Amino acid sequence: MGLIRSWVETANGAACPFPLNNLPCGVFSQGEDEPRCGMAIGDFVLDVAGLEEAGLLVLPGGPLLDVPFWNEVMAAGPEVWAALRARVTALLVEGAAERAAVEPYLVPLTEVALHLPFLVSEYTDFYAGRHHAFNVGTMFRGAENALPPNWLHIPIGYNGRASSVVVSGTEVRRPWGQVKGPDHAVPAFQPSRRFDIELEMGAVVGVPSEGPVTVAEADAMIFGYVLLNDWSARDIQAWEYQPLGPFQAKATATTISPWIVMKAALEPFRTATPAREVPLLPHLQEPGPMLYDIALEVALTPEGGEETVLSRTNYAEMYYSAAQQLAHHTTSGCPMNTGDLLGSGTISGPTKESRGSLLELSWGGKEPIAIAGGTRSFIEDNDTLTLRGACRGAGYTIGFGDCTGKVIPALADPYAR
Amino acid sequence: MGLIRSWVETANGAACPFPLNNLPCGVFSQGEDEPRCGMAIGDFVLDVAGLEEAGLLVLPGGPLLDVPFWNEVMAAGPEVWAALRARVTALLVEGAAERAAVEPYLVPLTEVALHLPFLVSEYTDFYAGRHHAFNVGTMFRGAENALPPNWLHIPIGYNGRASSVVVSGTEVRRPWGQVKGPDHAVPAFQPSRRFDIELEMGAVVGVPSEGPVTVAEADAMIFGYVLLNDWSARDIQAWEYQPLGPFQAKATATTISPWIVMKAALEPFRTATPAREVPLLPHLQEPGPMLYDIALEVALTPEGGEETVLSRTNYAEMYYSAAQQLAHHTTSGCPMNTGDLLGSGTISGPTKESRGSLLELSWGGKEPIAIAGGTRSFIEDNDTLTLRGACRGAGYTIGFGDCTGKVIPALADPYAR
Repeated sequence: MGLIRSWVETANGAACPFPLNNLPCGVFSQGEDEPRCGMAIGDFVLDVAGLEEAGLLVLPGGPLLDVPFWNEVMAAGPEVWAALRARVTALLVEGAAERAAVEPYLVPLTEVALHLPFLVSEYTDFYAGRHHAFNVGTMFRGAENALPPNWLHIPIGYNGRASSVVVSGTEVRRPWGQVKGPDHAVPAFQPSRRFDIELEMGAVVGVPSEGPVTVAEADAMIFGYVLLNDWSARDIQAWEYQPLGPFQAKATATTISPWIVMKAALEPFRTATPAREVPLLPHLQEPGPMLYDIALEVALTPEGGEETVLSRTNYAEMYYSAAQQLAHHTTSGCPMNTGDLLGSGTISGPTKESRGSLLELSWGGKEPIAIAGGTRSFIEDNDTLTLRGACRGAGYTIGFGDCTGKVIPALADPYAR
Repeated sequence: MGLIRSWVETANGAACPFPLNNLPCGVFSQGEDEPRCGMAIGDFVLDVAGLEEAGLLVLPGGPLLDVPFWNEVMAAGPEVWAALRARVTALLVEGAAERAAVEPYLVPLTEVALHLPFLVSEYTDFYAGRHHAFNVGTMFRGAENALPPNWLHIPIGYNGRASSVVVSGTEVRRPWGQVKGPDHAVPAFQPSRRFDIELEMGAVVGVPSEGPVTVAEADAMIFGYVLLNDWSARDIQAWEYQPLGPFQAKATATTISPWIVMKAALEPFRTATPAREVPLLPHLQEPGPMLYDIALEVALTPEGGEETVLSRTNYAEMYYSAAQQLAHHTTSGCPMNTGDLLGSGTISGPTKESRGSLLELSWGGKEPIAIAGGTRSFIEDNDTLTLRGACRGAGYTIGFGDCTGKVIPALADPYAR
């Protein structure tokens, strides 16, 4: 399938991240107006909440867009998602009869602020990148114990903190935490010195479940995907993570892209997970390709400096898909809800240039990497980190919007009042 | 302080768990009526939602009780909590002028169903019992590695799954999960054979926070406490927990008592944490006693059989208080919200008879314990497990209501549709 041409001219460029094929879901505001649901098209956001209010967009079981988050649409399920896309496509397609009626609902992207696109119910973070798991395991436990024995059999993950999820553009304050180096007799409480990113994709659960679901059912529950930066304080993590896993090291912030790309927009880019090194048990086997070919990159920009792209990789590097992760998540009977967010785990490729964290890129700080005008082992104050993702189709691109965050200095005294 | 006598006669017995000193918060329904907020008094639940509606209970910033959960009161903060208790005490105290007006709002406890008392935002589970950590660490990693190096320095914990929290009385279905014994070449997917309880207290966050808070501030944020059973599948846990901590082993269900006991009711029972084995860093030190003297017990009743009390212990056994845990939870800047639930960690005492899990009581199944008419290593199908808690004051008792759950058999095929 090629580009679907729109009467919104800027949507038709091959490099535009928001062609009519995409129609990602966000929440925007203009000036002092209340936030509302919109979909990106070309250089604009389409005020779909306004279209629904005006009767130009009628959804089964609606109104569903009269709230400043996408959860009601997400919960409504695949038929409503398809109806939404079909109707908005009909309104925006080249030659659409409703063009004059729809034009007033286009707002230039340069004039809006973007907000969290959905209410995050719970947040789970996985560890499903083969190269990342091996790299980090080697640094934390040595090469011989790098890959935990369970890793090839289940998509291991941990529950993260939903309250930490913020939208792209939100500043991230360097955290304090308890740390203890191997050479220190007692721990210290201090600002993190090894603050890091993790390049991930996030799967957004639409349809809730009770009880175990199959991988195919899990795939059908997913509404769409976001870019996700799982900010990580490596020094805090190293001290706290045994035996119960990461906790405060991952609780400062988790930044997501402003746009949820719906599964339908990603459909042409489906791809299979890599060959299994050992067979999976039947309940975790994929009935079809469940990953996506999404080119990803990480860029760092020091304050007042020039951007350096630190890493380029692809979501197709993952060993487990979000559908497999979600299916595993339900095996115990764990109820899943609309708005649950599943982080893929850090997406590192096989080469040094495709690693998805500074921990890996600088090999635990031992091999600082070159950036424009300097070097980096971990994030320094006032660095801006940006994740980008793109599916490249025939004559069009599917984008998520930048997933960006500037790291501001730690509080001088976290308990000063 | 002794018993506060009420005109509700059944509230004045020394063994009654719901004297006027207690006034715990729950959500009840009668017949087909919608659930509503109530407080237990003697053999009754006081329909406080009805009292508010009738103008007999006016809360600052109210109405706050016109929803079937306590979150609005919880968020309103300590002054509103105090105003609520003062007014309800005045209405129920012996000789109250409003007795005739209030009597119609008493509903016998035998006639009501009890529901989750609050909307759980996020759920965190700690590991703060010294004896439990040593016992479990010994079984999982050997006595020499039993206590992790960080354990005496931070109250270590992990994020659990809020969607798994259910109210006392909810049946719990034995989960399936991936397990692998040390002697097996490949893992298997099967119903858990080592399904267990964990006896815990849960702290309920009322006032939200942004950024790090002190231990004293954390204590002030807590609305009250519940009994909490953190159901745990030990065989699933053993295979999945490294390196990211427990996940599906703890996601089947977490049962809480139907009543939240407000902090004010527990005030006379405050007690200090045990002496520190190593000094804590200043930000985790307690400015005063932050634990409570709450006698706890675990009972098991096989179907059609007789109850056996398996364990008796006390919340005062914990090494860390909920206030310390909550303060630690915020060190990274993690935002905390109204309705966050913090599990204390399993509360085991120093003796075999005071252990808070079957894993410890049966020492990993190697020493089955005697129950009326049989033995138990772990929970068997159709066993009912009950936690109970009580503070014993001068002539009165503070109770939480039973925290109970019957374990029903696993699904024959979790993917049969």
